[in-house]
Amino acid sequence: MNQPGSPVGLHRVLAPAGVLPQAADRLDVRRELWPDEVRVRVERLNLDAASFRQLERSHPDGDAVRRAVLDIVASRGKMQNPETGSGGMLVGTVEEVGPESPLGLSVGDRVTTLVSLTLTPLVIEDGLSRWDGRSEQVPCDGYAVLFGRSIAAVIPDDLPAELSLSVMDVCGAPALTARVVGGYVDPVVAVIGGAGKSGSLSLAAAKAAGARTTIGVVPHQAEADLLTEAKIADVVAVADARDPVALSAAVEAAGGPADVTVVCVDVPGCEGGAILATADRGTVVFFSMATSFSAAALGAEGLAADVTMLVGNGYVPGHASYALDLLRADAGVRGLFTARLAAER
Amino acid sequence: MNQPGSPVGLHRVLAPAGVLPQAADRLDVRRELWPDEVRVRVERLNLDAASFRQLERSHPDGDAVRRAVLDIVASRGKMQNPETGSGGMLVGTVEEVGPESPLGLSVGDRVTTLVSLTLTPLVIEDGLSRWDGRSEQVPCDGYAVLFGRSIAAVIPDDLPAELSLSVMDVCGAPALTARVVGGYVDPVVAVIGGAGKSGSLSLAAAKAAGARTTIGVVPHQAEADLLTEAKIADVVAVADARDPVALSAAVEAAGGPADVTVVCVDVPGCEGGAILATADRGTVVFFSMATSFSAAALGAEGLAADVTMLVGNGYVPGHASYALDLLRADAGVRGLFTARLAAER
Repeated sequence: MNQPGSPVGLHRVLAPAGVLPQAADRLDVRRELWPDEVRVRVERLNLDAASFRQLERSHPDGDAVRRAVLDIVASRGKMQNPETGSGGMLVGTVEEVGPESPLGLSVGDRVTTLVSLTLTPLVIEDGLSRWDGRSEQVPCDGYAVLFGRSIAAVIPDDLPAELSLSVMDVCGAPALTARVVGGYVDPVVAVIGGAGKSGSLSLAAAKAAGARTTIGVVPHQAEADLLTEAKIADVVAVADARDPVALSAAVEAAGGPADVTVVCVDVPGCEGGAILATADRGTVVFFSMATSFSAAALGAEGLAADVTMLVGNGYVPGHASYALDLLRADAGVRGLFTARLAAER
Repeated sequence: MNQPGSPVGLHRVLAPAGVLPQAADRLDVRRELWPDEVRVRVERLNLDAASFRQLERSHPDGDAVRRAVLDIVASRGKMQNPETGSGGMLVGTVEEVGPESPLGLSVGDRVTTLVSLTLTPLVIEDGLSRWDGRSEQVPCDGYAVLFGRSIAAVIPDDLPAELSLSVMDVCGAPALTARVVGGYVDPVVAVIGGAGKSGSLSLAAAKAAGARTTIGVVPHQAEADLLTEAKIADVVAVADARDPVALSAAVEAAGGPADVTVVCVDVPGCEGGAILATADRGTVVFFSMATSFSAAALGAEGLAADVTMLVGNGYVPGHASYALDLLRADAGVRGLFTARLAAER
């Protein structure tokens, strides 16, 4: 390698100069590793939900979605949707470990990346021929490169790989929810999108972290039935999260306002409702990549709402094992995940 | 009025139905007041810095910028830049108070709005003929409407009106900075854009709230000289905030990493550097409307950075008087504000 490596991958940035890989337009995808890197043989991509929905909306069919993903990866050297800015994660098998890699991985380990695809050098080698373009789960052959400071987790033996992947994809949400909930005494916690993947884990995390009441908000009765059956929310409420008045009224009726509101729905326009549903001195945690920074900032100001608003950081130490433990301990959460995976097949 | 009023202004939303005024495409700007509203005769608009820069960049000259602002206000019934989503604030004189208004204002009071222009019904009646389109400060004749839950502050007698307006425009930043800094013991606080309006107030607030060391980061030597002369930062550092490696190195050299990093520069692409400059378990507060939600969320994840990231809420109770008191108490802050206002004239 001609230039020294950087633990955050600066040496792989082709353009523009000086930015971090996540902000880069284009990454260097050469197979050869810098000394602290790891190369993974990819078997599956898991696209970010907001990204996949945007692709579905803007293309006529699955073939066009597949071509769009191939185009993005070929031109950028990574899977980062230019419209949403988001990516996803991958599962694969370690095929080479640089002599100075600090990640503790060995050749042959089956791993998932816990850093986003938006900063992971990626080459697709099979034209995504086994994918119909109609699901976030993308069978794939190719390779990806991990940096010194990337995070990857070995897939546990006791759970199906797809299930682990699906859990680890959203494992930042329950860990951060638990931390925030732990900062309040007996709080009321509302999770918007409570029947989804990050939502159901966040509900379980909130309860484990001491929530007095957990409220799961879902968009329609079918999801409400699912969530009720899973028994992971104390109260289930139905409301359109994009309708601030309806959302805050539903949370109020369910025992709110919430001390902690966790936004897990990947649709734009939920900022105002989440703020309005939250008590004075409460906290809103935004995990959706569809969140608008200015809508959140100006929304709270416009409502004279004294709430703390957090950008949902996908990294909290120990997040993967915490999320997997929640799933192992809670049959309701596991049931929701399993049902979702079955529906995606 | 045919429909009942709402304290958050839902009755003024024309399209789309059901959203809050801030998220609306178009507001009802009729002169007649609902019972809890207040009408203000506008004398000056103060455009959000990110919005004004975007307008400047995308138009050839000041005349074109002026026409763009007139077009936005005429078509939307509010000043909300469709590209940045941001607005600004206004100063004016109360001309009518609805019988049920809870704001405590009287006809003739000279006030500034502390809610954003993005949700304030506004009519411009003079074609902005006294504005050359080359400054954020816009002389204006027209009227605006405040809702029951809007926030407006009477302009104090002891300070020039332009100075008060300029302080109140950014008063959320020092108040939230003080609150966050108060949550740490003897923290190091870095303010990116420390010589600007929100930046200089945030530096003063950090010191008042117990910061051990305050670091003011500025983009070039001229700003460094200004900030050094103002004596409001313990250390002054020069770095391009869009260059993550340079920014984090500069903060490190100045006594960092920071426990609290406050981002006050209205240029895109500062998320990665702010995260990289912040210590483990530290907090980044984003006040810039140029912040990208996904860049922040994925940036922290990609760097495996265990930092708390806050959306800078422009509303904290008592924020206006707190900011004005900081300015009154600190000749350095006042000097920076006065110099900036003089430069804008």
